[in-house]
Amino acid sequence: MSPTFGHIPGVPIGTTFENRAALAAAGVHTPHMQGISGNRENGADSIVASGSYVDDEDHGDYLIYTGMGGRDLATGRQIADQSVDQYANAGLITSELAGHPVRVVRGANGNALYAPPSGFRYDGLFTVESHWMTTGQDGYKVVQYRLQRLPNQPEPEGVAEPEDDPAYAVTVVTRRIRNTAVAQHVKEMYERTCQVCDREVSILGGLYVEGAHIRPLGRPHVGPDSVNNVLCLCPNHHVQLDYGGIVIGDDMRVTERETGSMIGPLRLKPGHNIDLAHVRYHRALWPEA
Amino acid sequence: MSPTFGHIPGVPIGTTFENRAALAAAGVHTPHMQGISGNRENGADSIVASGSYVDDEDHGDYLIYTGMGGRDLATGRQIADQSVDQYANAGLITSELAGHPVRVVRGANGNALYAPPSGFRYDGLFTVESHWMTTGQDGYKVVQYRLQRLPNQPEPEGVAEPEDDPAYAVTVVTRRIRNTAVAQHVKEMYERTCQVCDREVSILGGLYVEGAHIRPLGRPHVGPDSVNNVLCLCPNHHVQLDYGGIVIGDDMRVTERETGSMIGPLRLKPGHNIDLAHVRYHRALWPEA
Repeated sequence: MSPTFGHIPGVPIGTTFENRAALAAAGVHTPHMQGISGNRENGADSIVASGSYVDDEDHGDYLIYTGMGGRDLATGRQIADQSVDQYANAGLITSELAGHPVRVVRGANGNALYAPPSGFRYDGLFTVESHWMTTGQDGYKVVQYRLQRLPNQPEPEGVAEPEDDPAYAVTVVTRRIRNTAVAQHVKEMYERTCQVCDREVSILGGLYVEGAHIRPLGRPHVGPDSVNNVLCLCPNHHVQLDYGGIVIGDDMRVTERETGSMIGPLRLKPGHNIDLAHVRYHRALWPEA
Repeated sequence: MSPTFGHIPGVPIGTTFENRAALAAAGVHTPHMQGISGNRENGADSIVASGSYVDDEDHGDYLIYTGMGGRDLATGRQIADQSVDQYANAGLITSELAGHPVRVVRGANGNALYAPPSGFRYDGLFTVESHWMTTGQDGYKVVQYRLQRLPNQPEPEGVAEPEDDPAYAVTVVTRRIRNTAVAQHVKEMYERTCQVCDREVSILGGLYVEGAHIRPLGRPHVGPDSVNNVLCLCPNHHVQLDYGGIVIGDDMRVTERETGSMIGPLRLKPGHNIDLAHVRYHRALWPEA
């Protein structure tokens, strides 16, 4: 099932549900058992935070949330290592990198300060700010995520004042490059390697690469989100494309703008027909000195 | 003068000022003549949008704003090319990359739909979303910026409904790595080249590099924003450091985590004493498989 990001129409923050089946029927969190809804390709769109993992923390405005797997269902304790490849764990990473909002549902067994008195409650949209691994209380490796509540949402009734994390607002680091379906397609075409340098940027769980629009999106440029306007680039070359470091010639050769030195031909797979008009539009944005 | 980011205490959105001197005295926009307040090193903290550049556009929620320079003061027309190195133009780019909020002041001569009837008015905080160069109406190169109003701010009284840019919200691309004073210092130490690969990522106006925290900022990690916890890295190696692609040994050698292959020693300048405790904390976040 493809994820549905954002609020579910007709389900305001604070809506309560008797059980997981009701939550699933409403479309708020569709899996009946899993804590995370989603997948690696498209991202995760919702989680249930119900205190079922011993390493979970709920601070109101932010959660330290443990990934799925390795838990003994009878005792709730970790009995094996987790990995980012298990279940929907990678989905939350995809949502982190793309900036997708994640619906958070709290269950009655979570931190009493913020949990509903019974059943489950939809508590609004969060973003995944970061992830990491750690050795949990039970001695096994777990994947963890920091989820942060988006600002300017009503508080669900009856919850405590959220805890403050004063350093966070001034130090938060974001690296969110919108991963459209088109960008995803182009990334797969090149097996997540850079079309300029062929480089693989390995991270835990795979290769990191970005979909880069040649003619920028949004006004005044209104470049299209289409395959003929999207490249698969490493972060270094994406930065250079966006900020006037490199330009592409009509012959699809990539040149460093400042020095005029040739970096090389853009690697192009059959069927990836870059629109010359977009390439020329981009060159006009970054004229020679 | 060092920029002061954010609202000025005691100056709510909608506050009007008779002239530039009053605006400067209130600390909302301190330069008396320049449209942009700030500098390359620290960023720009405010602009005045008063329609004095022929290529400016005001759409309410977003501005297409022209940089400084090349304008005939008598006629207001462009008579020479602009560059990102002139005046405070680079300051807005620094603010773009660091995500700093920019105070926007509108003057009476701007787009009548959004301009104050007379004088100047403080209209709230915007972020710089992107920048580029273009050939303006008068045939000269100008630097332009798209500034976007931060959400959930009151509208100044009497302004028209802002124009919609429907594609923007779903396609916006952000790459904001908080540039703290410490990060700035470390970047200068290495002349904006990567400590792992020595690479220069050139963009228009200089070299692009990021300040990377070894032990992450914010809870639960609460790494410090201090020189002994910050590296100067290209985007590729920053991504790898943050997402488990590379780890640093006690001997300061950098290894690709997945394959165990050595990338090389971390380049270290005298006086840059990395705290081993932070390096070990980072390694614990990204354990071997």
